[in-house]
This record gives sequence, C-alpha cells and structure tokens, in this order.
Amino acid sequence: MNQPPRIAITTGEPAGIGPDLCILAASQQFPAELVLIGDPVVLAQRASAMQSPVTFSDYDPATTPQAGRVVVDCIPAPAAVTAGELDPTNAEYVLRTLDRAVDGCLSGEFAAMATCPVQKSIINEAGIAFTGHTEYLQARTQTKQVVMLLAAPGLRVALATTHLPLRDVADALSIEGLKSTLHCLQRGLSRQLGIHNPVILVTGLNPHAGEEGHLGQEELTVIKPAIEQLRSEGLKLEGPLPADTLFTPPFLERADAVLAMYHDQGLPVLKHLGFGQAVNITLGLPIIRTSVDHGTALTLAGTGQAKPGSLYAAVEAALDMVAVQKYQ
Amino acid sequence: MNQPPRIAITTGEPAGIGPDLCILAASQQFPAELVLIGDPVVLAQRASAMQSPVTFSDYDPATTPQAGRVVVDCIPAPAAVTAGELDPTNAEYVLRTLDRAVDGCLSGEFAAMATCPVQKSIINEAGIAFTGHTEYLQARTQTKQVVMLLAAPGLRVALATTHLPLRDVADALSIEGLKSTLHCLQRGLSRQLGIHNPVILVTGLNPHAGEEGHLGQEELTVIKPAIEQLRSEGLKLEGPLPADTLFTPPFLERADAVLAMYHDQGLPVLKHLGFGQAVNITLGLPIIRTSVDHGTALTLAGTGQAKPGSLYAAVEAALDMVAVQKYQ
Repeated sequence: MNQPPRIAITTGEPAGIGPDLCILAASQQFPAELVLIGDPVVLAQRASAMQSPVTFSDYDPATTPQAGRVVVDCIPAPAAVTAGELDPTNAEYVLRTLDRAVDGCLSGEFAAMATCPVQKSIINEAGIAFTGHTEYLQARTQTKQVVMLLAAPGLRVALATTHLPLRDVADALSIEGLKSTLHCLQRGLSRQLGIHNPVILVTGLNPHAGEEGHLGQEELTVIKPAIEQLRSEGLKLEGPLPADTLFTPPFLERADAVLAMYHDQGLPVLKHLGFGQAVNITLGLPIIRTSVDHGTALTLAGTGQAKPGSLYAAVEAALDMVAVQKYQ
Repeated sequence: MNQPPRIAITTGEPAGIGPDLCILAASQQFPAELVLIGDPVVLAQRASAMQSPVTFSDYDPATTPQAGRVVVDCIPAPAAVTAGELDPTNAEYVLRTLDRAVDGCLSGEFAAMATCPVQKSIINEAGIAFTGHTEYLQARTQTKQVVMLLAAPGLRVALATTHLPLRDVADALSIEGLKSTLHCLQRGLSRQLGIHNPVILVTGLNPHAGEEGHLGQEELTVIKPAIEQLRSEGLKLEGPLPADTLFTPPFLERADAVLAMYHDQGLPVLKHLGFGQAVNITLGLPIIRTSVDHGTALTLAGTGQAKPGSLYAAVEAALDMVAVQKYQ
C-alpha cells in the first residue's frame, strides 16, 4: 500500500521563530504526515501568542501516516520559554530534538527530516561544542563527507568551505578535499535529487578566477588540477570560472549546480534570487535532511510576522528527495 | 547657450570588442557628442567585418558639439590589428588613448570619459606595470582615494578592496582605510551622483558577519569601529551585515549603495541582477569616468555578437553625472 511519508520537523531554538513556522505549516496540506519534534507546551503558547486556533495531537508511531496531518512528538524543554529570550538551559533540549529526528530517519520511522533554525551561540554558551546542523548531523551519522547545498528556484549552490573566517579559506582548499566535495556533490545531485549526469560549474577562489596566476595561485595549483582529474573520471565540470561571470544567465542556463569556494562567494546571489523560498540540503548523509535557509529571527518570534516560505520549501524538497529515493 | 556635452569614449584593446561596441554606439542618439579615441583604421576594418555601414568623421575640437554626432579623435595603433589576436606592440597605444581622454576631461574639453575594456595581461606582457583602469586613472590624476562603484538598475555596489588575491584581503583592511573609502563613497554618491545623505550598507568580512567573533575578528576590530566613528560624523551607515542577508529586498530597499569588503562578495549579485546593463564608475577622481563592466571578449570581436548594453549604460551614467555636476 502506498502510504504517505512521515517527515520529521525539528522545531529548533524554542525562543526563535521555529515554533511559529511549525504552527503556520500546520495549515498547509502537504502530501505527508508532519511530525513536529519539540515541546508541545512551547507550541501551544506560541499558537496563542500568534492568535492561531491550531492544536496538535500527540504523535503515535503505531498509527498509519495520514497526509496533511501534523502531530507532535513530545520532547519537553527543561526551562519555560519566552519568545525572543535565549536560555542556555534549553540548549541540550534542542540537540535532543535533532537526535530524535536522526534516529527516526536512520530506523526508517521517518522518511526525511527538515530542520528549523537553531542558535549556535546559545548552544556554545551552554558549554556544548556545536558549529552547525550540518556538522552535527555528519558526526551523529558518522558520515565522512557531506556537502552543504542551497537551492532556490533556478539555482543550486554548494560550498567547498562553509563557516570559516575568510582569512582561513585559501589554506582550507586542497586538491583531495575538492575532489571529495565534488564527488559527494555529483553523487548527491544524481542519487538524492535525481539529476542524471549533472553539469557543475566551479568558481575560482580569487577575483577573475586568478587571471592565470596574476591575482592568486590557487586556481592553478588546486582547483584546475582537481577539476581535470575528475573530468577524466567522467564528471561534467566547468571551471574555474570567475564568480561574477558564472552567476549570469548564459552560464547558469547550462548548469545543474554551482560549487562556490566559500560562503559569501556563493550565497549572496542564491539568497537574493531565492529570497524567502530557498532551502538548505545536506548531501551525502545516509538520511534525507533539508532545512530553512535562515536564522532564528528572535525579534519576530511570537509576532505572527515570520514568513514560512523557506520551511515549506524545505518540506517540499524533502518530499522530492523521498520520491527520488523510491526509484533508486 | 546650452551645448550638448562631449563625452570621450576610449576604444580599449583594439583586438577586443571595444571597437565593435563603439560602432554599435554610433547608431544611438545620445544627447551628447561622442568622441571615440582610437585608431580610425581599426574602427573602419571592424565596421566592415561587422557589415556595418557606419563611417566616422574626424573630431575637430573647434566645432560646436552636436547631439547624436559620433566622431573619431585619431590615435594611430602602431601594429595592424586582427580581431581576437592580442599584440603587445599595441599596449602603449591603448594607454595613450586613456591619457588623451583624461587630459581632455581635466582641461574641460570633454565633460566625461567612458572606457571600453582593455586587456591587462597584454599590457603587462609589453613590460608596462598596469593593474587596471581605476588605478591608472587614479595615478594619472594624482588622486589620493578613489572608489570602484558598480551600478545596475536597483543596486550600487562599491568595493573596499578590488583586485587582490583572496588570501590577502583580510590583512588589507584597516580602520583608516575603510573610513577613507566610506568618506570617498559618501562624497561621490552625494556630489557626483546627486544622492543627498546616502544610506550605505556595509558588509562584514566573514560569513554571517563573523557571528560576534565566532567566525572571525575583523568585524569587531576593524569594520565596526570604522562605522561607529563615521556615524558620529553623521554618515548614514548600517553594518557590518552578513553579505547573504544584506543582498535581499528588505535590506536593499532602504539602501543607496552597498560597500562590500571584496570583489567576489559584492559583484556576483550585482552582475547577476544587472546582466548586460551594469556600469563601473570611479568615484573620487577630479573627472567623470564610467566604464563597461565586462572584459575584452576576444572571441566575439568582429563577429557582430558583442552586446553594447553596458557601454550604453556607461554613457548614460556619465551623462547623468554631467547633469549632477552642473547643479553643484
């Protein structure tokens, strides 16, 4: 029988807009059962603040999943939550919601997970080393190589390096590292997003892609060799291309994805283009994980002003990936 | 009597698309006399290759400027030119066309200059130190501080650093340097572009603008102090803002310009948004100088395929700046 999939949604930092987005998502009719993972008291209080009539029943794994149903898998937050006010006492709780979603995805209970934003700083303040969802899920699933891919209508951008100070970026690149990233990206696009033989455009590191060594060496010493070795394996790669040339229609038209060398080279265009509807996908994990592309927006929590477009896009992207997986 | 202005257009690298763009510009009716500075033989040959019936008469400074007229101020290229084939013998010639335009702007003969693209590598190959138009014009006019500003419909992006290898960017920033750049940008927007009290958004250097020091220190040690000092002088500045947040509608709506810390942080969005119609403006010079935003496109030279949108935008931006100057 063709049951609708169950998608876990982690409600994220409880003082941020994660709960607000989950409440708004409950009014949508996704062809899936959404299992919100978090504290039902927080959700009820937030619904009340937003003057939303939504109520949630408890998740029961024994029931048959039902499309359009939204339930809560209860993990209690130890401290009472005030919208907009961070509390390190709840940091561990936030990570437990992630663990629950990962475990459920690994066991097959959930078909995928979509994550609401967490607040790195407060988790760190609670004494827990945490650099981001992507890295946490990679460690939790013991995955060697993952790739952060941001997707908006008409553009997908993956990153060779993610959350590094700019001065550390050049030294973080290596031929082997780039090859591993590009392999992972190519496999992810193909097996997880269903794009057969994807064409990937690769940026240079330096302005004008280094102008043949006049503006930096990494194109010649790292990026070109990596691309050439992978081309000989059959990967469809173009580059290194100047970033300000690559992100124009004549180049993007022929690309399935772009690999940018670092965060602020690739994401400004992506977020400009996909404002309010971009989604963050972690490729390479043994599970399907998508995410909103934004932060906790503490000042908007409870106001009813938070925009749920990115969470909806994350759920839809997860559903697309679930469908691709079925036909693998 | 209100005469139309004379705008000098340097024809750029003769083997590139500069001559093609000038030939196409001759079919436009700008409210100005355009004085093409370069070799009339190159222009005639290129017109022939493009099957254009255009012919040019020689520039005569003694005549009254005439709107819509396009003339050539002859500087002969020493070597015969083949479209698409670079020749270092002509490098010195390219610089002489710039000198002529600058001198004419300084003397008041020309109201402004717009530049077609040059090829840095072949100028360097000819043994001449040259890093770009902007730096050359700055030296030639003995100007202390200039700012490179790229403008597209709806967005202006200035750069704190320009053509530097990425690994050198962080160390190139300083409080005094940023203050000088922001002063120059503010003055240029106000006096040269006629934007009273401009609002300038300033990016961070690191991803997420450094996340309060978690992803880099330069926001705290350099960018914030520079912004705060200038705010106390009355400049309208916001930042440091994460680049991938800044380039979205809610932020751009309230901005007259963005100052990005480096080339590939600011220009991909600008060129994506302004594809084919972006213009490069050098603020701070004692003359008005605009430019196309693209390179020499050697493979397109003589084919008739070169797109003149950026040159037209450069001429129009120059004319706007001439009009603003009149009312200063």
